[in-house]
Amino acid sequence: MADVGFVGLGVMGGRMAARLLAAGHVITGYNRTKAKATWLIERGMRWAHSPRAVVEAAEVTLSMVTDTTALRGITGGPDGVLAGLGPGKIYVDMSTVSPAASRQVAAAVRDRGARMLDAPVSGSVSTLEEGKLSIMAAGDRDAFERVRQILEAIGPKVTYVGPNGQAVLMKIATNLSLAVQMLAFSEGVLLAEKGGIPRPIAVDVLLNSVIASPMIRYRGPFVLGRPEEAWFDVGMMQKDMTLALDLGRELSVPLPTTSVTDQLLTAARAMGFGSEDFAVLFEVLRTVAGMREAV
Amino acid sequence: MADVGFVGLGVMGGRMAARLLAAGHVITGYNRTKAKATWLIERGMRWAHSPRAVVEAAEVTLSMVTDTTALRGITGGPDGVLAGLGPGKIYVDMSTVSPAASRQVAAAVRDRGARMLDAPVSGSVSTLEEGKLSIMAAGDRDAFERVRQILEAIGPKVTYVGPNGQAVLMKIATNLSLAVQMLAFSEGVLLAEKGGIPRPIAVDVLLNSVIASPMIRYRGPFVLGRPEEAWFDVGMMQKDMTLALDLGRELSVPLPTTSVTDQLLTAARAMGFGSEDFAVLFEVLRTVAGMREAV
Amino acid sequence: MADVGFVGLGVMGGRMAARLLAAGHVITGYNRTKAKATWLIERGMRWAHSPRAVVEAAEVTLSMVTDTTALRGITGGPDGVLAGLGPGKIYVDMSTVSPAASRQVAAAVRDRGARMLDAPVSGSVSTLEEGKLSIMAAGDRDAFERVRQILEAIGPKVTYVGPNGQAVLMKIATNLSLAVQMLAFSEGVLLAEKGGIPRPIAVDVLLNSVIASPMIRYRGPFVLGRPEEAWFDVGMMQKDMTLALDLGRELSVPLPTTSVTDQLLTAARAMGFGSEDFAVLFEVLRTVAGMREAV
Amino acid sequence: MADVGFVGLGVMGGRMAARLLAAGHVITGYNRTKAKATWLIERGMRWAHSPRAVVEAAEVTLSMVTDTTALRGITGGPDGVLAGLGPGKIYVDMSTVSPAASRQVAAAVRDRGARMLDAPVSGSVSTLEEGKLSIMAAGDRDAFERVRQILEAIGPKVTYVGPNGQAVLMKIATNLSLAVQMLAFSEGVLLAEKGGIPRPIAVDVLLNSVIASPMIRYRGPFVLGRPEEAWFDVGMMQKDMTLALDLGRELSVPLPTTSVTDQLLTAARAMGFGSEDFAVLFEVLRTVAGMREAV
Repeated sequence: MADVGFVGLGVMGGRMAARLLAAGHVITGYNRTKAKATWLIERGMRWAHSPRAVVEAAEVTLSMVTDTTALRGITGGPDGVLAGLGPGKIYVDMSTVSPAASRQVAAAVRDRGARMLDAPVSGSVSTLEEGKLSIMAAGDRDAFERVRQILEAIGPKVTYVGPNGQAVLMKIATNLSLAVQMLAFSEGVLLAEKGGIPRPIAVDVLLNSVIASPMIRYRGPFVLGRPEEAWFDVGMMQKDMTLALDLGRELSVPLPTTSVTDQLLTAARAMGFGSEDFAVLFEVLRTVAGMREAV
Repeated sequence: MADVGFVGLGVMGGRMAARLLAAGHVITGYNRTKAKATWLIERGMRWAHSPRAVVEAAEVTLSMVTDTTALRGITGGPDGVLAGLGPGKIYVDMSTVSPAASRQVAAAVRDRGARMLDAPVSGSVSTLEEGKLSIMAAGDRDAFERVRQILEAIGPKVTYVGPNGQAVLMKIATNLSLAVQMLAFSEGVLLAEKGGIPRPIAVDVLLNSVIASPMIRYRGPFVLGRPEEAWFDVGMMQKDMTLALDLGRELSVPLPTTSVTDQLLTAARAMGFGSEDFAVLFEVLRTVAGMREAV
Repeated sequence: MADVGFVGLGVMGGRMAARLLAAGHVITGYNRTKAKATWLIERGMRWAHSPRAVVEAAEVTLSMVTDTTALRGITGGPDGVLAGLGPGKIYVDMSTVSPAASRQVAAAVRDRGARMLDAPVSGSVSTLEEGKLSIMAAGDRDAFERVRQILEAIGPKVTYVGPNGQAVLMKIATNLSLAVQMLAFSEGVLLAEKGGIPRPIAVDVLLNSVIASPMIRYRGPFVLGRPEEAWFDVGMMQKDMTLALDLGRELSVPLPTTSVTDQLLTAARAMGFGSEDFAVLFEVLRTVAGMREAV
Repeated sequence: MADVGFVGLGVMGGRMAARLLAAGHVITGYNRTKAKATWLIERGMRWAHSPRAVVEAAEVTLSMVTDTTALRGITGGPDGVLAGLGPGKIYVDMSTVSPAASRQVAAAVRDRGARMLDAPVSGSVSTLEEGKLSIMAAGDRDAFERVRQILEAIGPKVTYVGPNGQAVLMKIATNLSLAVQMLAFSEGVLLAEKGGIPRPIAVDVLLNSVIASPMIRYRGPFVLGRPEEAWFDVGMMQKDMTLALDLGRELSVPLPTTSVTDQLLTAARAMGFGSEDFAVLFEVLRTVAGMREAV
């Protein structure tokens, strides 16, 4: 069992650290708001007062933060991850950030003699808790082999993709379909419903059809009743769509369904649904279809 | 085993009739081009010289034609299906047509003392041949129970949906997601590929992710090599999208992803891909992304 | 002054007939609802009991109806326009219908030895009343020259376009920009307003910019106060968009901005705005932006 | 005549400085590449070796740079604009940047006791050379009155909009319609052309219709022959569209026509049209319509 550092102990990061603790790893952790990490300290996690201090205490450091800005926040500066890195150390960022930003950090990590992997996860809090999370990893292959077991303690399916930045790229390329599929599903449900078919029957038929991806089987029923807790909310979903659209402009790839869906995620936030699961796209469509009040 | 009539013995209809013959039913069939039905006659199918003659020879008549215009063609006129119907007879149309058109025919059928079901299928030639076709049926419940066994000889999954027109409505509401999911999938593949990930790896990752619907698992690999035979071509796919969009206007349901995808199906036809499987949307996107010649 | 027939005396048709009467023409008219034509009869218009009777009484017959279905209604059957036509007569349809439908009627007109022009108008009731209407005409050139003066009595700008069907085609190709420009204008106004600029100032700047088409200069101010009377309502606008989209599929022309705008016209009808001027797209966008109630 | 500084002497900035020189102003200028400013030095412009040196030599300094990043480049650092500002000085940035970035610089300017205006221009090189440029200005009203005459020497129409950032916001809100109107116009032209109307006739009809904004009247004819020089190229147009889309997400304003048009600007760059006037959207649409080779 290795000495593992963890920076960013929020909803996802905290649960990941807990799984590592449960697997017997020695964990040193840091979070901007210490209070949110109390439960982990009670389970034996060591506390460090800065990202740098985490890195200095560990061979392998993992991080899980909100976005590109947050990644820059924890890696730069005198107390950042980079300041603590040196030869032999490995840094694994599991956040979903832009491939360019990830590669920039990876280059800075290399400059300090260390190695970095981008290793975003596919799945939500529930998938994580069920021990079914998928992890894609990219970067130095040898570094990957060294941390593979640690990653497997978080989620069983760990796949090596390629050079730095390609795991987050693949994550973004996957996630754009989440929102698009959900919106197309909603279009079908609403068409059926306005055409006279009771919504539960329409959902049932669609969930048993060839369009029922695992995501649709899980999230489709939310059009019958919105979930109490959002595992992937509109704000997070739109963050990923924006990464895809920015990449599309950068790489000259037109993204027709992604861009139209992104506009309805904007509508979702405008209607006050920003913190709800993105399945609320169905309610947005109902509003546009004159079936509910917008505000 | 019942006396069953079958009007419309094309690629799908012919294979359906063959399954009924194989199940031991006595089949009387009609097709506009008799030559295409020779193989069925050789297997024992009786030939009738008009849709009306089919209906007069059978208790239950099934039909499978291209579109709403074709449905009107086989049902109307002195030699049409309607002219042959009378009390006790059941007519089952398995075509994908507009719900309004289907309901109109159903009303005319009722006027003649007979009953009609709309019973479109979900799946393609291959699904049919594997004996895995799904059938949704709508109309008179009692009539449905009487023909259920016949339909089950065609495809094992037979679901009753509701009043006349609702099965074709549900089919249309399902099918719009086929093209949208394929286009979103293509956007992801192309983003990954232009970002440096080999296409086969990108496809592999996506096919193992939560967005992999049965349709995507089947059709996704076509972006690595276009199939020799199209089981659901661009023209047929756009016919269904147009039905969805017309319904959307009629029922006041905005269909954002459906309409944007429909435009790219138009592009597909403009580029000469009209008879290819609609997975060719990937090639359309590549063209728009400047990666292949348009003509 | 010629003997002129007029079929379809609604909001537009009636005012056109009135202009012809004022110009000294002898007018024989027909309208499905006679009551709506009383004011014209009081001004000297002769009444005919059917489209056929109109055509029989006149050398040149004009018509102005709602859509393709209505055109078929007045032209076909024993009491229709076609039944009354014969050598030497000219029929001018001023409705906005599909080019294919217009060409079909033109062919039937030719079969009876007469000639037809399609001559849709550009502009609304107010443009008409100000005597500023533009008319595009297509069909037989000689027939055009014979009716030119009659058309000029309706609107001063009369342009010959080409063979049958091309005037309605050009009308459709023009009108799609009306709704698209209005929606793009609304996006700009709303962006400015939510960014802190008072709406009247934003409108003022836009109306003085290079994007201010005559249509925008006329209709843009409606975002500051909806007009009491709709001169071109959502339903009519969407009829023209649907003609464009159907043509786009027929001719394999992708129409990206037309299709996205069409969906918001559907939303407008869904929100109960079907009979308002299509400038109400601004209110639809405000609804989608969470700024007003949808129902 | 005031002592005026000018930072950024590219295609637009250089011509602006030339107009100020011609109007009798004493100009001190700076450009990253000095060679591009030789012609201005020959006309009497004084050269300064840094943005800071420009500001120190002048009462009022104008700047015109490419984007937000370039604005940060010339304003920050020990040699930047900010370092040279002090009480009494006025800084006018005429670039099109994000309102937020403009307001940030304005705040930094205020911290140094000086005042800033954002004053983007509407129009291109040709409009400038014809002396017809429009300028919108925002920021401190009194500072605006002090520089009004200087701005009027550049373009005659100078409008005060409101607080800092609102002029660039208004510019962005206007410019999104440029590309959308051009694309909708192209859809109409292509529909007419594929329907059999010669392209020049279609363009002529459209340029004489109610959709002919000044921009369309100027740029529409480019579909008959692409201009040798691009006054507003695809790259610059998409920069403004991206600013609009980013603002839309920030302010929760869905932008349906803007987003769909943005995707076709991406396609334009992918097809190698990045440096052509954005009227090339017509060629992009022709490619999508299978009418020309993509690469």
